[in-house]
Amino acid sequence: MIIVLKPDVEQNKREQLIDWLGTLGVGVHTSVGEYQTVLGLIGDTAGVDMDLIDSLDIVETVKRVSEPFKRANRKFHPEDTVVEVGDVRVGSGHFCMIAGPCSVESEDQIVAIAKAVKAAGANMLRGGAFKPRTSPYDFQGLKADGLELLRIARQETGLPIVSEIMNAADLPLFEDIDVLQVGARNMQNFDLLKELGTTKKPILLKRGLANTLRELLMSAEYIMSNGNENVILCERGIRTFGDYFRNTLDLSAVPMLHELSHLPVVVDPSHATGIARMVAPMAVAATAAGADGLLIEVHNDPPHALCDGAQSIRPEEYEKLAAKVRAVREVAVC
Amino acid sequence: MIIVLKPDVEQNKREQLIDWLGTLGVGVHTSVGEYQTVLGLIGDTAGVDMDLIDSLDIVETVKRVSEPFKRANRKFHPEDTVVEVGDVRVGSGHFCMIAGPCSVESEDQIVAIAKAVKAAGANMLRGGAFKPRTSPYDFQGLKADGLELLRIARQETGLPIVSEIMNAADLPLFEDIDVLQVGARNMQNFDLLKELGTTKKPILLKRGLANTLRELLMSAEYIMSNGNENVILCERGIRTFGDYFRNTLDLSAVPMLHELSHLPVVVDPSHATGIARMVAPMAVAATAAGADGLLIEVHNDPPHALCDGAQSIRPEEYEKLAAKVRAVREVAVC
Amino acid sequence: MIIVLKPDVEQNKREQLIDWLGTLGVGVHTSVGEYQTVLGLIGDTAGVDMDLIDSLDIVETVKRVSEPFKRANRKFHPEDTVVEVGDVRVGSGHFCMIAGPCSVESEDQIVAIAKAVKAAGANMLRGGAFKPRTSPYDFQGLKADGLELLRIARQETGLPIVSEIMNAADLPLFEDIDVLQVGARNMQNFDLLKELGTTKKPILLKRGLANTLRELLMSAEYIMSNGNENVILCERGIRTFGDYFRNTLDLSAVPMLHELSHLPVVVDPSHATGIARMVAPMAVAATAAGADGLLIEVHNDPPHALCDGAQSIRPEEYEKLAAKVRAVREVAVC
Amino acid sequence: MIIVLKPDVEQNKREQLIDWLGTLGVGVHTSVGEYQTVLGLIGDTAGVDMDLIDSLDIVETVKRVSEPFKRANRKFHPEDTVVEVGDVRVGSGHFCMIAGPCSVESEDQIVAIAKAVKAAGANMLRGGAFKPRTSPYDFQGLKADGLELLRIARQETGLPIVSEIMNAADLPLFEDIDVLQVGARNMQNFDLLKELGTTKKPILLKRGLANTLRELLMSAEYIMSNGNENVILCERGIRTFGDYFRNTLDLSAVPMLHELSHLPVVVDPSHATGIARMVAPMAVAATAAGADGLLIEVHNDPPHALCDGAQSIRPEEYEKLAAKVRAVREVAVC
Repeated sequence: MIIVLKPDVEQNKREQLIDWLGTLGVGVHTSVGEYQTVLGLIGDTAGVDMDLIDSLDIVETVKRVSEPFKRANRKFHPEDTVVEVGDVRVGSGHFCMIAGPCSVESEDQIVAIAKAVKAAGANMLRGGAFKPRTSPYDFQGLKADGLELLRIARQETGLPIVSEIMNAADLPLFEDIDVLQVGARNMQNFDLLKELGTTKKPILLKRGLANTLRELLMSAEYIMSNGNENVILCERGIRTFGDYFRNTLDLSAVPMLHELSHLPVVVDPSHATGIARMVAPMAVAATAAGADGLLIEVHNDPPHALCDGAQSIRPEEYEKLAAKVRAVREVAVC
Repeated sequence: MIIVLKPDVEQNKREQLIDWLGTLGVGVHTSVGEYQTVLGLIGDTAGVDMDLIDSLDIVETVKRVSEPFKRANRKFHPEDTVVEVGDVRVGSGHFCMIAGPCSVESEDQIVAIAKAVKAAGANMLRGGAFKPRTSPYDFQGLKADGLELLRIARQETGLPIVSEIMNAADLPLFEDIDVLQVGARNMQNFDLLKELGTTKKPILLKRGLANTLRELLMSAEYIMSNGNENVILCERGIRTFGDYFRNTLDLSAVPMLHELSHLPVVVDPSHATGIARMVAPMAVAATAAGADGLLIEVHNDPPHALCDGAQSIRPEEYEKLAAKVRAVREVAVC
Repeated sequence: MIIVLKPDVEQNKREQLIDWLGTLGVGVHTSVGEYQTVLGLIGDTAGVDMDLIDSLDIVETVKRVSEPFKRANRKFHPEDTVVEVGDVRVGSGHFCMIAGPCSVESEDQIVAIAKAVKAAGANMLRGGAFKPRTSPYDFQGLKADGLELLRIARQETGLPIVSEIMNAADLPLFEDIDVLQVGARNMQNFDLLKELGTTKKPILLKRGLANTLRELLMSAEYIMSNGNENVILCERGIRTFGDYFRNTLDLSAVPMLHELSHLPVVVDPSHATGIARMVAPMAVAATAAGADGLLIEVHNDPPHALCDGAQSIRPEEYEKLAAKVRAVREVAVC
Repeated sequence: MIIVLKPDVEQNKREQLIDWLGTLGVGVHTSVGEYQTVLGLIGDTAGVDMDLIDSLDIVETVKRVSEPFKRANRKFHPEDTVVEVGDVRVGSGHFCMIAGPCSVESEDQIVAIAKAVKAAGANMLRGGAFKPRTSPYDFQGLKADGLELLRIARQETGLPIVSEIMNAADLPLFEDIDVLQVGARNMQNFDLLKELGTTKKPILLKRGLANTLRELLMSAEYIMSNGNENVILCERGIRTFGDYFRNTLDLSAVPMLHELSHLPVVVDPSHATGIARMVAPMAVAATAAGADGLLIEVHNDPPHALCDGAQSIRPEEYEKLAAKVRAVREVAVC
């Protein structure tokens, strides 16, 4: 962190500041120039409150030089992380195709969809059992029963299963779920993240609707600093003023997250667009942007889906999409 | 909800749709016109998925006529709700002045600030014991010890205390805390909201950084539909592209929330601006806009505050602000 | 347009509204139901003020059924428009590669870059002569001299030239410029759009930083309704809260604009990201999303570019990018 | 501007950078520290491209210390500017009440409204003659005839008149208009701003829908650096994800613009909210936040207004609002 003092700051005020910085456990390297004095903070500045320093009378400006995330930072971990989910690997050239319904509704439904998406090229099955809904009057998921149906679908197809966890208290129910998803609304539910950090389970961490990339990586850091390095980042659209889409898919997040971090990055075009016929073009674009996988809602009967039917595609559409994704990967990604 | 069908829809398709709507438990009133057919849904449409209907082939457009929130809706509860916190009342002409530090740091600190803000005109004390921080490396609060210090400050001053709860598992610790605050990042932590709905405690529900007013009211609805009607809404700034402020305080939320809902609305200008010298003008403006109270960070030694010192004002500044707020209330609010 | 009246509206009020709507030149089809009355407006409703109607006492809700743009609307012009620029065609399977420096700086510079981008696969040359800069103290472009240098580069390479026009008063200077670009800041400079509508020149219309897709199409409509149908739409990033990029490239705009309109859609990943090393992945992603062309800043000496050097790539990087774009087009776009 | 170099930069690369900075006309003060080298740029850095420097290999980070605006900067002009419009003064304790219809429609209309708003406390009349409309099919204003009707209304009431100019070519028509308004969509129409800078007329400059405060001040700088210091800034709402309002009124802009600049700041709550019944609370709040004036749409027959009737209030409502504004100014603004 670099602190530039205002011109003509009295020496005793400057020394008070340096003393105080010392009490925060950081070293201070002072460059006294003709026109300005610059303080360079050395050591672990992650706990220094930039805004506070910026507000001090004698400070002209302050800037953080290094990113506040460490374990997620590519600088300290140059090789790509590969997250392993059973036999499926994600990251560093390993691409995952996660597909399934928004909500698990019945054994027939989830098993049929699981078989269909497997045949169409998926290598993981997603399905919501605990559903975060804006309205308390909307269907909230089958909960433990839904997880049980997912297990049956896994048994029938061999596909590892991904499902959202909303509450650390539910962790025992998720013991044998392969990947735990943290939804966009819980990206900064820090107590949940800390608890997930104490497991060794792969975590699929979705970016919040209005969260920056730095905040996403800081949330990954909550999980990782508690001991679990198996984090998959997920871009799923941000909230803007846009008029035709539910959210705005931010595909530039993909190459930037890859530059900042070694963690794998997948994209969810279904939630981002909210419109079934826009899923395929955005899935292909995400692939071309370098994503490590896709999370796509597939339903065998979208008009009768209990939630988010509007954004679900059918298995036959998924199959075509998967073929195109494979073709694009071959030419676009070195 | 009004559904407009595309021109020239075949009769059997129209009837299929009407049948299907019937299975959702809503009545359908059909107006067949020369150019279009309009279906009016009657009854409880809160669980009908608008996006799904909008995506159907035969549908031109769909619009929700009534708001999806019920208990929070002024239409069904025209009189202002007054939330009672000990002797303090909030709403319907009763104004609350909630003040205190971002974090509880020590007994000396919290007791000194409590006395100072009481003398300056506050009628509730706020202080964070569980702190949601973007970084896992930042100070996370004194937790149970912090709550204990707040109780001491309450004993010393008689001020009711407000503190943030991040996790339903902590509820037993909060048993005698007067007002439970739900922070912006947890506004859609629905499991937490449901649990809070099973208590009778006053809940101060902060608007999320990128949440609409409708979503805020739906989150209030989660609490209320579980049995707890003591909800105070709080505007604390939204995330925009702005350059000089941490967030953008949306004061138009105040009169609009009052129109939509009977719940009291308070404003937090400290988090919204993040800059101590901007707190007073925005506090006065919030009052003029009709807020039912203010939540303001006050610290006796901002440069040494363990968090958010940049936005904390001193007790003497708070006293001036409080006087101006009272004066504006007298002339601006009828 | 559909107007839903409130229940129990008196008949004379309803008739007054219908009479007034008649004076606006639209037909009204009334469906009186048991629970509500729905008015369907027939004819040209583009000039009816929805907000005003929505504000009337007796109106419950109002919704526009058809889009307010006509000439740009695919509904009334189902085939893709192909814009012809000399021998280059844009749209309906014809892909354009527009490349060149942010600013024209000298004859040597623009001729060298023009030759380099042509060799690398570009089929149009871009270069700014009139530069819209946030600061009046920044370089404002070589103006007429810059256009003259572009003409020389065209002569040397045969590449058609694209350059931004900021003011209708400059139109005579642009008489033989092949494509006139309207910058993001002028997307709603309606007087400029109207004047451009009176020419027959191809117009490259960039989406404004905070403009919706509907607004972009309405701006195209200003040009088209004045007689010029040669409009190329351009997505170049929108303004959000993002932290690492200048703007957020909204690639979902590509398939949606194609659905709404018959006009060609190109993408500018250079301005959107502002970072040279992010241009290639986003260019490839834009191609996969179905763009009809790319507008990319290329400079032979980015560190010495007079503007936007940070986002310019070198000719050799452009050549690699162009090869990848061609490969992706072959597999991704049917 | 402060440039922090990466650790271990070779001396010759550092010297190349310093030489190059010298060619840009700025002095460089070098602080070589044990861990890093910091370059402080001295002199006029307004033309130095921060993004470019930030993109150089050897640069760790760069930060602008001083604001890029000069003439609008309070640092170089500590006293408030007072803009004089005939007998009306704006700024530094002088409050202006600008009121009138969105569009001038007829002599009867504008004269009646002018008389009514004068009686209700307005001291300037606004009325649009050239109207920027999103749709080319909407009413575009009476143009020169509208300006003529405004002159008649001025003659009848003595109120100075404010009207929007969209095109520098129209300047001769505006010769005796008292205040020239630049609309939000033209805030970065730099050619228009430059031309207005060559007049001595008071300019009311509206903030663009997605423009930062710094950009607003840079646009003021375009006018001022061309010779016209009579600029009044206007906050009129920004574009966000909000659901109930057309725009989000950003009242924190008021105290921040006052801190950054000496120019007067007025607020337009009519366009910001788009809803007549929200105008009064937001007008009062803007006053409490320290605005130097209000721009409010008043119409004697809102349902028949040719544009923006939904947001216009009636003269009798304006009168009440004006009384409340006066009362709040007395107590809130020192």
